[in-house]
Amino acid sequence: MTQARQYHQIDGMFAMQHGELRDPVVAYESWGTLNEQRDNAILLFTGLSPSAHAASSALDTSSGWWEQMIGPDRPVDTSRFFLICVNSLGSCFGSTGPASIDPNTGEPYRLTFPVLTLEDIARAGQVVVESLGIQQLHCVVGASMGGMTALCHAILYPDASTGLVCISSAARALPYTIALRSVQREIIRSDPTWLNGAYDADKEPSVGMRLARKLGMLTYRSPKEFELRFGRELIGEERQIGDTFGIDFEVESYLEAHAQKFVGTFDANCYLYLSRAMDLFDIADYGGSLTTGFRRIGATRVMVIGVETDILFPIEQQRELAAGLDNGSRDVRLHAVDSLQGHDAFLVDMDRFRPLLCEFFNPDDPDADCRE
Amino acid sequence: MTQARQYHQIDGMFAMQHGELRDPVVAYESWGTLNEQRDNAILLFTGLSPSAHAASSALDTSSGWWEQMIGPDRPVDTSRFFLICVNSLGSCFGSTGPASIDPNTGEPYRLTFPVLTLEDIARAGQVVVESLGIQQLHCVVGASMGGMTALCHAILYPDASTGLVCISSAARALPYTIALRSVQREIIRSDPTWLNGAYDADKEPSVGMRLARKLGMLTYRSPKEFELRFGRELIGEERQIGDTFGIDFEVESYLEAHAQKFVGTFDANCYLYLSRAMDLFDIADYGGSLTTGFRRIGATRVMVIGVETDILFPIEQQRELAAGLDNGSRDVRLHAVDSLQGHDAFLVDMDRFRPLLCEFFNPDDPDADCRE
Repeated sequence: MTQARQYHQIDGMFAMQHGELRDPVVAYESWGTLNEQRDNAILLFTGLSPSAHAASSALDTSSGWWEQMIGPDRPVDTSRFFLICVNSLGSCFGSTGPASIDPNTGEPYRLTFPVLTLEDIARAGQVVVESLGIQQLHCVVGASMGGMTALCHAILYPDASTGLVCISSAARALPYTIALRSVQREIIRSDPTWLNGAYDADKEPSVGMRLARKLGMLTYRSPKEFELRFGRELIGEERQIGDTFGIDFEVESYLEAHAQKFVGTFDANCYLYLSRAMDLFDIADYGGSLTTGFRRIGATRVMVIGVETDILFPIEQQRELAAGLDNGSRDVRLHAVDSLQGHDAFLVDMDRFRPLLCEFFNPDDPDADCRE
Repeated sequence: MTQARQYHQIDGMFAMQHGELRDPVVAYESWGTLNEQRDNAILLFTGLSPSAHAASSALDTSSGWWEQMIGPDRPVDTSRFFLICVNSLGSCFGSTGPASIDPNTGEPYRLTFPVLTLEDIARAGQVVVESLGIQQLHCVVGASMGGMTALCHAILYPDASTGLVCISSAARALPYTIALRSVQREIIRSDPTWLNGAYDADKEPSVGMRLARKLGMLTYRSPKEFELRFGRELIGEERQIGDTFGIDFEVESYLEAHAQKFVGTFDANCYLYLSRAMDLFDIADYGGSLTTGFRRIGATRVMVIGVETDILFPIEQQRELAAGLDNGSRDVRLHAVDSLQGHDAFLVDMDRFRPLLCEFFNPDDPDADCRE
């Protein structure tokens, strides 16, 4: 039976920015059909933790992480577009990463995996695109880490795509964001079961992963949302305050539920590599300044979306992106979304995000409403 | 030789909100002289981690945590005022807390210490005040946790003080702030050497304390300050990026330095108790709403200071405090300080804070500039 998830193996040595991989694999899924002109393809890069399963399909009917955005009559209309979503190189959902077996040793790479960069992820995505016989993309799309990867792709392959959509991303991480992620990484590394990366797959550093996820949730959402959702509500009276320094407030219970859901779903070493890759990326590495970096981008239609309450990639960074991309001739749109849900809004505040992508991908059809 | 640090022992049982302590001790320091009318005393409550050593004196010439604010010709002019700073009950700098020996068992209290509240800390402070023969305070002052404790004191003892100064505090913690502190506490509790609180004094959970401190620093400062101070500066070239997921960026080096400085200076169990006490406090517990709580406060001259970039006690909470305290007849001043240094500004941005306290404590002398 055909699987939704496809694998493209790169034969031979794949050059990374800080090393190389032998015969790596890039996992991806696709929706819709590539047309005869081969000009209706959209490439989607993901955030840190999702797989390539962005939406359900006949081959995999389970909901994807951007289910409401992808499908017939949805903003990314798969009756018109051929959408490809790649699992980032370095991740653990089919693509080669630190948890994969190194063919040279027969052991998992773990920390012998080369330092990963968004450039490596962008290149691996482009390899998949080319393997499908696509020379020209309609658009490259990404949110969060995926938005930075899309920008990186636009710099590395200036002629590969006419469209570019960057959601809640940035030209480079701010030091405060770096610091937040650095503490998350150190929390994982400080779990004694991490064993300097040498844990067995069934004995992952789950305490560290749980705590890193909790801190993550605090950077993905907003204080205002927490105030409206949880207030100072205490959990049920069956628990006495204070006996174990455990959960007293509803907001703590919410974090705990998210942490438990995360454990066992993501490899710790992969998390460390991907998290650091976001910190290392800097458009200014291309020519010495943001200006020179932006200048390399060839896309002619660009949409930048940010969220007013985003702590991780603040709205100022979206303005910086839009201003930097505006070269006078390029069509650049900036949307500052007034959502309570912070960085995660693109995953959960669909009523605000759907119309923006709908309009961008259906410019000739002002009546398109891309409803559910 | 006389010590700067004094100890007041409370003989017999001290009733706490959730238990009692036998013969507890409250450590404090004082500066200046109580006048004959006994009406020139100021009571200072501290944030979570400082001791009672707010400033140097002849008896202890080492710098205190609010050195520039206290002394002759400084905002809290000790040639006019008699300042008392108490080490919070539950802390570990002389006052009885979880690290102290329980006289009933001869062992440290550790987690048998009763659930601590700011009410307990405020009451212990008032015991010291009364032990010194002071019936009427000129002012109660506090910042951060100390500001909440000062508010709590003002509710519990409405007639005890005419003045009240609350700096970067709140009527109650927001759920986002609770969540941040909850994650810090869980980081400490997740250190295997915490041993459910039963670690030996020389084998403290230092990894957990280091990480909690790093996260703390991210809540005490501001993203803007980090941007201006550190940018994306990498540390020296002698280190290779990526070998250990250690320190690549200057901002990480800064956090590490603060974390190392903190380890060994504060007992982990005390930290847990004090941190949770901040979460539990709620002015609305007094009569059912913020309004009823504020109504109990008797102080007639109030100053509320907040910082625009404070993440932990946002400026909106300062406005809420000032509005709640304004009963039409009370003299309430609100200062929103435009400092980059976030919650910590009251400790480091002295040029902005000194004039505010100078003016408040020297209302009859418009020329007082309280310079260094």
